[in-house]
Amino acid sequence: MNEFEPSSPSAALTDEELRRVDGWWRAANYLSVGQIYLLDNPLLREPLRIEHIKPRLLGHWGTTPGLNFVYAHLNRAIKRHDLDAIYVTGPGHGGPALVASTYLEGTYSEVYPHISHDEEGLRHLFRQFSFPGGIPSHVAPETPGSINEGGELGYSLIHAYGAAFDNPDLLVCCVVGDGEAETGPLAAGWQANKFVDPARDGAVLPVLHLNGYKIANPTVLARIPRDELRALLEGFGHRPWFVEGSEPSDVHQTMATALDEAVCEIRRIQAEARAGHEAARVRWPMIVLVTPKGWTGPKEVDGRPAEGSFRSHQVPLADLAKRPEHLAQLEDWLRSYKPEELFDESGAVRPEITALAPEGDRRMGANPHANGGLLLRDLDRPDFRDYAVDLKAPATTSSEATRVLGGFLRDVVASNDDRFRIFGPDETVSNRLGAVFETTDRQWNAPRLVTDDHLAPSGRVVEVLSEHLCEGWLEGYLLTGRHGIFNCYEAFIHIVDAMFNQHAKWLKVTREIPWRRPIASLNYLLTSHVWRQDHNGFSHQDPGFIDHVVNKKAEIIRVYLPPDANCLLSVADHCLRSRNYVNVIVAGKQPSLNYLTMDEAIAHCTRGIGTWEWASNDGGQAPDVVLACAGDIPTLETVSAAAILRDVLPDVKVRVVNVVDLMRLQDAREHPHGLPDAEFDALFTADRPVIFAYHGYPWLIHRLTYRRTNHPNLHVRGYKEEGTTTTPFDMVMLNDMDRFHLVIDVIDRVPGLGARAAHVRQQMADERLRHRAYTRDVGDDMPDVRDWTWPAEDRAAPEPEPVRGLPG
Amino acid sequence: MNEFEPSSPSAALTDEELRRVDGWWRAANYLSVGQIYLLDNPLLREPLRIEHIKPRLLGHWGTTPGLNFVYAHLNRAIKRHDLDAIYVTGPGHGGPALVASTYLEGTYSEVYPHISHDEEGLRHLFRQFSFPGGIPSHVAPETPGSINEGGELGYSLIHAYGAAFDNPDLLVCCVVGDGEAETGPLAAGWQANKFVDPARDGAVLPVLHLNGYKIANPTVLARIPRDELRALLEGFGHRPWFVEGSEPSDVHQTMATALDEAVCEIRRIQAEARAGHEAARVRWPMIVLVTPKGWTGPKEVDGRPAEGSFRSHQVPLADLAKRPEHLAQLEDWLRSYKPEELFDESGAVRPEITALAPEGDRRMGANPHANGGLLLRDLDRPDFRDYAVDLKAPATTSSEATRVLGGFLRDVVASNDDRFRIFGPDETVSNRLGAVFETTDRQWNAPRLVTDDHLAPSGRVVEVLSEHLCEGWLEGYLLTGRHGIFNCYEAFIHIVDAMFNQHAKWLKVTREIPWRRPIASLNYLLTSHVWRQDHNGFSHQDPGFIDHVVNKKAEIIRVYLPPDANCLLSVADHCLRSRNYVNVIVAGKQPSLNYLTMDEAIAHCTRGIGTWEWASNDGGQAPDVVLACAGDIPTLETVSAAAILRDVLPDVKVRVVNVVDLMRLQDAREHPHGLPDAEFDALFTADRPVIFAYHGYPWLIHRLTYRRTNHPNLHVRGYKEEGTTTTPFDMVMLNDMDRFHLVIDVIDRVPGLGARAAHVRQQMADERLRHRAYTRDVGDDMPDVRDWTWPAEDRAAPEPEPVRGLPG
Repeated sequence: MNEFEPSSPSAALTDEELRRVDGWWRAANYLSVGQIYLLDNPLLREPLRIEHIKPRLLGHWGTTPGLNFVYAHLNRAIKRHDLDAIYVTGPGHGGPALVASTYLEGTYSEVYPHISHDEEGLRHLFRQFSFPGGIPSHVAPETPGSINEGGELGYSLIHAYGAAFDNPDLLVCCVVGDGEAETGPLAAGWQANKFVDPARDGAVLPVLHLNGYKIANPTVLARIPRDELRALLEGFGHRPWFVEGSEPSDVHQTMATALDEAVCEIRRIQAEARAGHEAARVRWPMIVLVTPKGWTGPKEVDGRPAEGSFRSHQVPLADLAKRPEHLAQLEDWLRSYKPEELFDESGAVRPEITALAPEGDRRMGANPHANGGLLLRDLDRPDFRDYAVDLKAPATTSSEATRVLGGFLRDVVASNDDRFRIFGPDETVSNRLGAVFETTDRQWNAPRLVTDDHLAPSGRVVEVLSEHLCEGWLEGYLLTGRHGIFNCYEAFIHIVDAMFNQHAKWLKVTREIPWRRPIASLNYLLTSHVWRQDHNGFSHQDPGFIDHVVNKKAEIIRVYLPPDANCLLSVADHCLRSRNYVNVIVAGKQPSLNYLTMDEAIAHCTRGIGTWEWASNDGGQAPDVVLACAGDIPTLETVSAAAILRDVLPDVKVRVVNVVDLMRLQDAREHPHGLPDAEFDALFTADRPVIFAYHGYPWLIHRLTYRRTNHPNLHVRGYKEEGTTTTPFDMVMLNDMDRFHLVIDVIDRVPGLGARAAHVRQQMADERLRHRAYTRDVGDDMPDVRDWTWPAEDRAAPEPEPVRGLPG
Repeated sequence: MNEFEPSSPSAALTDEELRRVDGWWRAANYLSVGQIYLLDNPLLREPLRIEHIKPRLLGHWGTTPGLNFVYAHLNRAIKRHDLDAIYVTGPGHGGPALVASTYLEGTYSEVYPHISHDEEGLRHLFRQFSFPGGIPSHVAPETPGSINEGGELGYSLIHAYGAAFDNPDLLVCCVVGDGEAETGPLAAGWQANKFVDPARDGAVLPVLHLNGYKIANPTVLARIPRDELRALLEGFGHRPWFVEGSEPSDVHQTMATALDEAVCEIRRIQAEARAGHEAARVRWPMIVLVTPKGWTGPKEVDGRPAEGSFRSHQVPLADLAKRPEHLAQLEDWLRSYKPEELFDESGAVRPEITALAPEGDRRMGANPHANGGLLLRDLDRPDFRDYAVDLKAPATTSSEATRVLGGFLRDVVASNDDRFRIFGPDETVSNRLGAVFETTDRQWNAPRLVTDDHLAPSGRVVEVLSEHLCEGWLEGYLLTGRHGIFNCYEAFIHIVDAMFNQHAKWLKVTREIPWRRPIASLNYLLTSHVWRQDHNGFSHQDPGFIDHVVNKKAEIIRVYLPPDANCLLSVADHCLRSRNYVNVIVAGKQPSLNYLTMDEAIAHCTRGIGTWEWASNDGGQAPDVVLACAGDIPTLETVSAAAILRDVLPDVKVRVVNVVDLMRLQDAREHPHGLPDAEFDALFTADRPVIFAYHGYPWLIHRLTYRRTNHPNLHVRGYKEEGTTTTPFDMVMLNDMDRFHLVIDVIDRVPGLGARAAHVRQQMADERLRHRAYTRDVGDDMPDVRDWTWPAEDRAAPEPEPVRGLPG
């Protein structure tokens, strides 16, 4: 790395540098317009005719020249300052810019050899853009150097910070569009600089690009007075440099100066921190780039302003077949970049243009940080079996599952302090993962007080009250080749539904791109879940993220509902080893029964679904009824119901089936984990009633199993949007998933049980009323429900005692 | 309204005023602690014993005293300045505060008479809080005066602005917690002041409450230097007043001054604007209130700081049964408010305390704006039939459905310029609703340029590039008794999944609260939908919002998929008339076939589902196959497939069923719109194959219909996450929902069709390949597919011509 260089007027460009930067920029702009418009005649070697134009014009010109401009200048800065830099494109609709720039630097042709540096390659390059069978119009996984899907706006700055964590030598340049800046996630993302450690993390250089307009409206930040904007950005903790203009040679000079100053300032901040000086309040530099929308494009179209207006947002010149004057204007526009100066006879970009690019991996399109799988190193994982809860018999002791997991995560943290982080919205202790603070802290780079708890400039846990930031940071961290987990209250994970969508789509596409290396999976630990939000009430009760997730491609999606602490350990270890998935783990934090020894848990989780013989009394023969369950609370109610049945209706042969891996339920043709029909039928029978207690919305189980043989006999209980501030057992009663109701369900569905069953049915109904009355009167669950455990002394001879409180 | 009063030192409190405000505050704090802890002994008439304490302690003390403080001061300000004000509680976890304050002012007992102003009433008040069968721990619909569910944080400021639109005399005081301030939606919400018209809208007064801590962490805004915070808030366009301290009498004085100044400044701004002066750049006042978390609570608990620390976030004193010293500390805490001074012998609050409250509707708990149904006036709607597309025969002409709707909306706007707004993220023109700009503008209160399009200080359309703001503004607008619609790209509506959840939960609960009057429904118009995001590509393709929505209570949820422009008109009119629902309308904006005359459309939409005889050839008898469809593109492919079948396999009797109201598919026991089984069977038969082309993810149809008789024969095509930047027809081919594939599906499922069918099947497969090859080669759909229309001249004698391009 270079020595710290003071800012000076000499940072501005020499004439030669100016020519190079401008040449690159013109070339990139030419290639961008070519992509949007041209099907053929890529070098304009003949007059432009309508046959050279694509039949459908798709693309966004408006933001593109600005993106090309920043890219060109970063190239110069990378070489001048020996930077290790990546480029995050907030205005991702400007896809042509990133394709053009990575083509110019040579990366594009390396990963897509048919897009060669000659006329034929140019023809392919232009044709493929937004063309059936070609490439998307936005920055996408297909774009080398990208870690930020450019379709849905709002996440660039958050991704940039995620990339910078634990990458001390990395500079993440993030172009923020002034449209995107209006979104919530982007607005919250400005505060991320309070979490960056200048000693151990890299730096983010935001470039706020004010081009003034969105699709049809001006942008807020472009229209507030400049002093107000400056105050805002200083309020965000930045020191902004303004680069403003429309005359390229001037703007090149100011931009070069600003970039040099910013790089020097970043190095100064980092050098101080790395020399051991804890800075008071670091003000990170940033750049505000104010240039016309559609800069260098047509000034006017049909007598109305195009450049500098919202009318240049997409395709400024349209309807070319019917409007020959538009065709002529396009040709003028293209020729204004002087293609003859940019390309040689063969159609290759002239070396004086490409010379601006850095070498090898320093090219932003080739930087391995933007293809994180290249850098991915396995986690050093302790043996998760060492954290197992010891148990002599099922359902005789309780654990807080996430607290057990916390011990494992603590040691994962300790062994991987350069590549594993835990993100969460201020809930890591609330979610009972507090053991991690035995070995690390919450990262926080603002002032600290004595009343604070485990805050430090550096730490493996990053907490902020924004699910958007947690998600985006983790995505950025994973996409640059590291590992992590997001722990969140189950209900509020819906805040990031849209971000999950984009990440899942990204993963789906990357699986089809050979040069994109697999990255670590995105792991959600959803706890404080619906059944234990009795205290926070209705607003905190929503198990629907699973429904949302399973709409995405089966190859990407995994959903786990470990029933106890040992199963959670096994599942978590599996998820931390996996690649290119989204893993959703739902697990409770409240004391809950332990069912399986570690070895049993491993076997059960490996199968993902299985019969629990110790809870069943069908002796491995055909049962009268199957009680199935998925999720810790449904499992508790199900094994309790099975125990009641054994006690009061011992002749009913019950099989208990527990599901850990939800996607086992789906058809093997639909999901890679799907159970073959024969195995499914062996578990669930072909014709017996199945009472399924499920963690979430009950209809999801129907959606997963509708093709199964025995689906007509499947009856599902789950959360049906009934709840308020009450007690845990009242929650399951409100939703008819309590043990007593499950017994009633069995009695109602198993034929021929006779008078004894009718009597029991009435007892169960009375029991429900008695609990309800007790709860409303005392304000708590009845002790026998809260403490109730599986009464068997050992699983070899399960001999349940009568359920306490149940009359004769 | 009072005359404008200049700010002056006389605004501070007299001794008497100070005594009153402080007395109210102490009373509210006492009532808050009582709610969290006490089951009995509400007036502390006997020493506190463990039997008086609730068995489960649930609630959030930390933010509560601050909320009580602001409420007390607002009471004074309302009376002093004759304000019409409501209170939006960002830190909604402080539920006890709002219950206490509305109890003190009398509103609470008016809506809940058993919570009377005597000892028995106090006992009920305390007991019900966070108690089974009682009230939630957060601010909720049950709380008088609230329009903001307090569970999920982030939306208070946005709701406040939604309430202020078109309420020129209303002051919306919005307390923003410093935890909530870290969320994306809140951070974006600060910019909402650029959209408020001081002449025609009311004002929002944000009170940023810095109490310093979240659950376990400090808050960002409390830890940045004050000058940085000031710059930030000025950058947001505010003029902040800082009120900071921990000594109540001092803070009372500063707060009173700040509030008086803020009110005067707001009146000055409004008076200027209403006098016709267009202000340059208005800087709205706001207050920053810096007080200790858990103010007036225990200073220390177990030797560790409580007040002023994250440890007072929830219940500072716990485990009272086991820790008698905590019980004693609680008693000291409660007695510190001097209950004997607050309540008389009967347990009623003393009149010198309650005297602080305003009268009648000016009490914030009783203000009708916070129970918007009270103020709701029907829309003046033009007759939607006047906008009908004229058609002579089905499927012979095309319309852009949303453009047709735009004409209707234009006139709804024109007739309701005080109570109807259109919200959207910069897409109203893109979504082809541009006709509204013939009568209104986009509201924008920042500088305007000549290059702008239909911007004005006042307008019925509010556009910002934040779905969160659009959603929250509309929610706030509806909750205060007005009407509106949110138009959005279908894929990106997932950004507000979590906000929708909270609104749907709010509606579910309000239906059970007699004093909450019905409000206008929340209407989503989702367009630029999945099948026409061929140009923007994969990132813009997600039809899953419907799946998300249908998880909520059936009483609340309506989903409409109008197949053509006339049906869209009929559906939209219906939705604008409805109350207390969430209506999701999915409709395309691209040219699409017209199928039904207006009268037919009304009849069809009223039924919600029906057979299209003109597209069928079963002659009303038992068909060989049912082709069902829901959504405009699936309908196009389905009627096309039916036409092909009539041409090439005329002996196959086809019935075409179209679904507009998706919930008709569900069981009548599950949804009020659910079709009775007999009617469903009459449409879909009991045993014939059903090929269902659906707009969204295909499994949703299975989830809705799994109980239906003929479900085993139901075969659904829909979006299965396959797409990229391509052509419209390629999109349906990629997902196997194209007309040719539907014909193949029929051939594969109708038994006994013989050799001719096998030949046709091959033709269809060839046809698909031919189209695919053409698309990849030319970059466009084949003209015959793009232009293909139902070839019948009239529906009486449908005699389809051979499909063009189909060999023999």
